[in-house]
Amino acid sequence: MGPGHLTPAATAGVPEGLRPEQILALGDGEVVLLDQTRLPGEVAWTRCRSWPEVVDAIRGMVVRGAPAIGIAGAMGVALAAQRGPDELGALRAEIARAARALREARPTAVNLAWAVDAVARVAAEHPGPAGELRTALAEAARRIHAEEVRRCERIGAQARPLIGPGARILTHCNAGALATGGYGTALGVVRAAYRADPTVRVLVDETRPLLQGARLTAWELDREGIPFTLIADGMAAAMMAERRVTHVVVGADRIAANGDVVNKIGTYGLAVLAREHGIPFIVAAPTSTLDLSLPTAAAVPIEERHSDEVRALSLFGRPAALPGAPVANPAFDRTPARLVTAIVTEQGVHRPPYERSLRAARDAALAAA
Amino acid sequence: MGPGHLTPAATAGVPEGLRPEQILALGDGEVVLLDQTRLPGEVAWTRCRSWPEVVDAIRGMVVRGAPAIGIAGAMGVALAAQRGPDELGALRAEIARAARALREARPTAVNLAWAVDAVARVAAEHPGPAGELRTALAEAARRIHAEEVRRCERIGAQARPLIGPGARILTHCNAGALATGGYGTALGVVRAAYRADPTVRVLVDETRPLLQGARLTAWELDREGIPFTLIADGMAAAMMAERRVTHVVVGADRIAANGDVVNKIGTYGLAVLAREHGIPFIVAAPTSTLDLSLPTAAAVPIEERHSDEVRALSLFGRPAALPGAPVANPAFDRTPARLVTAIVTEQGVHRPPYERSLRAARDAALAAA
Repeated sequence: MGPGHLTPAATAGVPEGLRPEQILALGDGEVVLLDQTRLPGEVAWTRCRSWPEVVDAIRGMVVRGAPAIGIAGAMGVALAAQRGPDELGALRAEIARAARALREARPTAVNLAWAVDAVARVAAEHPGPAGELRTALAEAARRIHAEEVRRCERIGAQARPLIGPGARILTHCNAGALATGGYGTALGVVRAAYRADPTVRVLVDETRPLLQGARLTAWELDREGIPFTLIADGMAAAMMAERRVTHVVVGADRIAANGDVVNKIGTYGLAVLAREHGIPFIVAAPTSTLDLSLPTAAAVPIEERHSDEVRALSLFGRPAALPGAPVANPAFDRTPARLVTAIVTEQGVHRPPYERSLRAARDAALAAA
Repeated sequence: MGPGHLTPAATAGVPEGLRPEQILALGDGEVVLLDQTRLPGEVAWTRCRSWPEVVDAIRGMVVRGAPAIGIAGAMGVALAAQRGPDELGALRAEIARAARALREARPTAVNLAWAVDAVARVAAEHPGPAGELRTALAEAARRIHAEEVRRCERIGAQARPLIGPGARILTHCNAGALATGGYGTALGVVRAAYRADPTVRVLVDETRPLLQGARLTAWELDREGIPFTLIADGMAAAMMAERRVTHVVVGADRIAANGDVVNKIGTYGLAVLAREHGIPFIVAAPTSTLDLSLPTAAAVPIEERHSDEVRALSLFGRPAALPGAPVANPAFDRTPARLVTAIVTEQGVHRPPYERSLRAARDAALAAA
């Protein structure tokens, strides 16, 4: 089930009116996605013309990043409405079927369930007729997209006081525009910091197995002209020991009520290393990433992905692993709240203990919606 | 200067009488090396017919691993003698020139300088004539090879009490037969442990950038039928948190008098993580890896290698990094002695504080030579 085998539909040139930074859009009878499995070699777009194609695109990581898969899921539900039957009961059943499948396309990020449920709720409560329901769902999905981008911009602003002059920011995976539908969470913090202080520099962890740092974060920073250095994941500790890192800033796929963070595999190790070196470890995420129903991260399911993601690698054009080597491939890990210096949401900067502050942030976000 | 561009000479099938595990041999007018840049896809041999080809092979990591490059360097000096002029003064000068270049082929591992100097000393002290000097150097180089393999076997035996039943050993890079000319240091410990207890399991870090874990350690363990699981480097912390690691066992490129360890980049991070999780961190190395002239590892030069080692990667056949991305690529890092639970040499198990014990080990090794 590697991303190499799963590209779900035809790809095409950049759709009219879309910048790559937008990465996804709901069109008329289609969801258009920038294919993140092909970056940085190719800027190609995938057009999903049915909701199962959106499920495949999420599973195959054509679109990835917790906020972005939430937006894609929401658009998938709206697409199910566009493509569904005209009879209201049958349409509602089709939308519910799509919502169920989309919600389960990937298990770890909570944004997906959150966004899919939000749009599905609009469908369940809408009086019809079908045409108006379709319009309402499209609006709901597009609103979620716009709100997530706005949340990212707020996160960048909120984090400004945390990033001092001349910062050397290490980031992991991609929590940029590509991961969020625009601007980014961790990379939003980087963008805002760089805009305020052009001496800011970024260390980009390549982030094996799927290399979102090398492929996506480097591509985003390069397009914006923000100076960065790419390193292999195993180099982070030495960079910290040599004082080449002043802050670690990462995104999140799910944050529990106590502030435990589930994020891309490798995050937990960076948090331990940051603590060892006295470096602040900052998590940037919109309130849509909070899962306050879970007291800690212990119960968050960790997706185990296909072995080929680890094995299907070549270096200098030569295969880099035994074809049949047994592999472990957990896509995420859990970082305990005690290692997290601050969590930044669009509502503010949260400090330990996190329970009360995160709950207030969620309440404020609901009130603002 | 990536290894893809540096294969120094023609490659051929397995030379007569050589098993791949031997990885290198001094022949009549050639040094034959198993080309480690081509594993695991291809078992190919490189024949170096002049000492500069041996320099290139060491630089290009056709042969790598601190003890193995020491042996290759020694064989390179012997090859310079075989190929050198018959006049004794001119021959000595050629040997000295070869020794200088071979010693500097890579800067970090001390075994290279140690072994090259040992053979060069034989040349400097030999009365001639040229033919007998050549024979003496060939014998010296082959003796170093045989002794390093014997040291590895002793290391495996010495470490047995450290590895309890049902151990789950995490290892980094390749400190196996391929790295040592036979048997291995860290993998020697693994081999000995598995032989005594077939429930032992191994976690293999892929070890970016050059993937010695995925390419070489997995290949060695697979050939021996020792069960292993391959992981990306960033997964080690999560594996430790889930209690899937009972010991970390690594090799070393240089060990300072106080027990500081210089080894493949990524080692230091594993040592910090092992300490955080209460897991013993064990370094296995022959006494030829000790550099007691250095009080700590602070002064050990850390080789910075070519950016393409980080960038020249493909995943599912697609390029995995921006072609021109700025890269940091230190090949090694420094692990402070305070994070090292034990150092195992062929002389025994050394515990902190290391100064006296390592000095005694070096003295015993010199006395036994």
